[in-house]
Amino acid sequence: MAADEAGAEGVAESRGKVTITEIARQAGVSVPTVSRVVNGRSDVSPRTRARVEDLLLRHGYRKRASASGSRAALLDLVFNDLDSPWAVEILRGVEEVAHAAGVGTVVSAIHGRSGDAREWMRNLRARASDGVILVTSALEPVLHEELRALGVPLVVVDPAGSPALDVPTIGAANWSGGMAATEHLLSLGHRRIGLIAGPPRLLCSRARLDGYRAALEGAGIVPDGSLVVPGDFHPESGFTGCNALLALPEPPTALFAASDQMALGAIEALRRRGLRVPEDMSVVGFDDLPEVRWSAPPLTTVRQPLADMGKLAVRTVLRLARGEQPDSPRVELGTELVVRSSTAPPAP
Amino acid sequence: MAADEAGAEGVAESRGKVTITEIARQAGVSVPTVSRVVNGRSDVSPRTRARVEDLLLRHGYRKRASASGSRAALLDLVFNDLDSPWAVEILRGVEEVAHAAGVGTVVSAIHGRSGDAREWMRNLRARASDGVILVTSALEPVLHEELRALGVPLVVVDPAGSPALDVPTIGAANWSGGMAATEHLLSLGHRRIGLIAGPPRLLCSRARLDGYRAALEGAGIVPDGSLVVPGDFHPESGFTGCNALLALPEPPTALFAASDQMALGAIEALRRRGLRVPEDMSVVGFDDLPEVRWSAPPLTTVRQPLADMGKLAVRTVLRLARGEQPDSPRVELGTELVVRSSTAPPAP
Repeated sequence: MAADEAGAEGVAESRGKVTITEIARQAGVSVPTVSRVVNGRSDVSPRTRARVEDLLLRHGYRKRASASGSRAALLDLVFNDLDSPWAVEILRGVEEVAHAAGVGTVVSAIHGRSGDAREWMRNLRARASDGVILVTSALEPVLHEELRALGVPLVVVDPAGSPALDVPTIGAANWSGGMAATEHLLSLGHRRIGLIAGPPRLLCSRARLDGYRAALEGAGIVPDGSLVVPGDFHPESGFTGCNALLALPEPPTALFAASDQMALGAIEALRRRGLRVPEDMSVVGFDDLPEVRWSAPPLTTVRQPLADMGKLAVRTVLRLARGEQPDSPRVELGTELVVRSSTAPPAP
Repeated sequence: MAADEAGAEGVAESRGKVTITEIARQAGVSVPTVSRVVNGRSDVSPRTRARVEDLLLRHGYRKRASASGSRAALLDLVFNDLDSPWAVEILRGVEEVAHAAGVGTVVSAIHGRSGDAREWMRNLRARASDGVILVTSALEPVLHEELRALGVPLVVVDPAGSPALDVPTIGAANWSGGMAATEHLLSLGHRRIGLIAGPPRLLCSRARLDGYRAALEGAGIVPDGSLVVPGDFHPESGFTGCNALLALPEPPTALFAASDQMALGAIEALRRRGLRVPEDMSVVGFDDLPEVRWSAPPLTTVRQPLADMGKLAVRTVLRLARGEQPDSPRVELGTELVVRSSTAPPAP
């Protein structure tokens, strides 16, 4: 009975120094009690826990990770690139919930390179991870197949809005966000509103563009195609997009940039021409990255709940690991307009 | 012999489905060959590897992580907080080198809270991590003792410059950086240069302040204590610090902020007063965070090689794990002045 319980709770290893039975003998407690301490369970009195932990420590005892144990020990969080400004926000949410659940978060970047993805896959197998959260749609279909074959629970966090995958996906409400940004500018009295759009191949770009158009049409304005310029979410494209809009015969009085980074590029383009934000041009971004609280001026933007998306991803992957089903195969968390100092009524 | 080799290369587990011997039989190769594939070694022909990987995949075979194996499988990277702008830069360097070495990077944040640190310690023991990189000096001495007792290799990445620890530490050349920032402003013709300093309890703050003073004295200028105001590295303190300097009877013509975030706060304070950067005031930061390339204006700053510090930390911890010694108990990587658009000669 005692041995069964210890076995069920995790595979233990002595590093050739001491066994769990010996620790139990020295602590004057049962083997299952030591096992409960090793497995971080709460149903042990603080005094007993302290005594057992002290002995484990003194003997340099380390539990071996369990590949098939009842408790998830590790989850893999995979980004395309870690220099995406999103990355740390999502990681913050993932780490918080995983840490609280006693699960370690293994972070990897695959750089959209098939070699890195295969290498990660090999490592994943070697460390017997208990779940995977992908923050990329860049994984090749064949690797999706391999993940499925491994039987590792998988959740995709997808700020970009990818075409439907047959795995649980967590995104943000991009259309509503685009609409909120544009309605805010309309409510200030702007009628000519430029859009620096995201890459057309990403669904999130299309959703934000459609939200922008829906708001204009809702205000009785026929969208003017010349006021929409392409961007790629990076600051450079905001800079050139803003310059293109300023070169129009009748430039807009306000800009909606479909990412914060493009908004920062646009503000720099305005500054170089001696134009002030928001006096000469209002600018709204999208994302609410931490740094835009201190851009000059602080940026009005649409908040994507990136940390919350990370948190929900962990909860979902842990549910899958317990054999439960997610509430819905695709969840979109709400976006929210954050008004700061980069927007004002148009100059009279 | 064959069995020995497989055993030496990693602990294998079948998940109750298939053994390594069975995979070898089906693939028509030896057990050591399967073992080499499982352990990600390169001395297997591509065709054999593909055949074995295919079988491993089809049977859902997963290798169990080895707590005491010859190959490091996991390292723990511990931050105080993940919303530090440093965090993702250091992580980027750590992940790159760890990934290439086939080592998974487990990321944790302990928020300076002793409960979180103890919880992390418990998880560390449970997952049998092969090395620890701390990016914080906030770990209590008792936890340092526990880490030592566990025998896990430990390296501290320390952009803040903590008092000497008896573990290998990787920092940045703060004094030289402070001197380079100040010399740059001097070379542009500035004579009254303000400093928004870091928290005095951190050695890096003191080193940057001393570098600032050394540059002034090198130019024959007696440092004026009223031109040094305190900050805490966060943007708010740059904002208030800049306002304090502007309220002086004779304000400076240039500012050195001891962090990029304080520089951004200072630029916002100047913008609100209608003062232009660099025409009315030059500003230099410290860190070279990715976002300051697109501040308005792009920030002249001192680059801390955070990703390189992360890379060196992984190499050091892997050396320790192999029983080797680091080159030096304390390494400081060089800082570098990056000149952008926030500095210019003083107004005539």
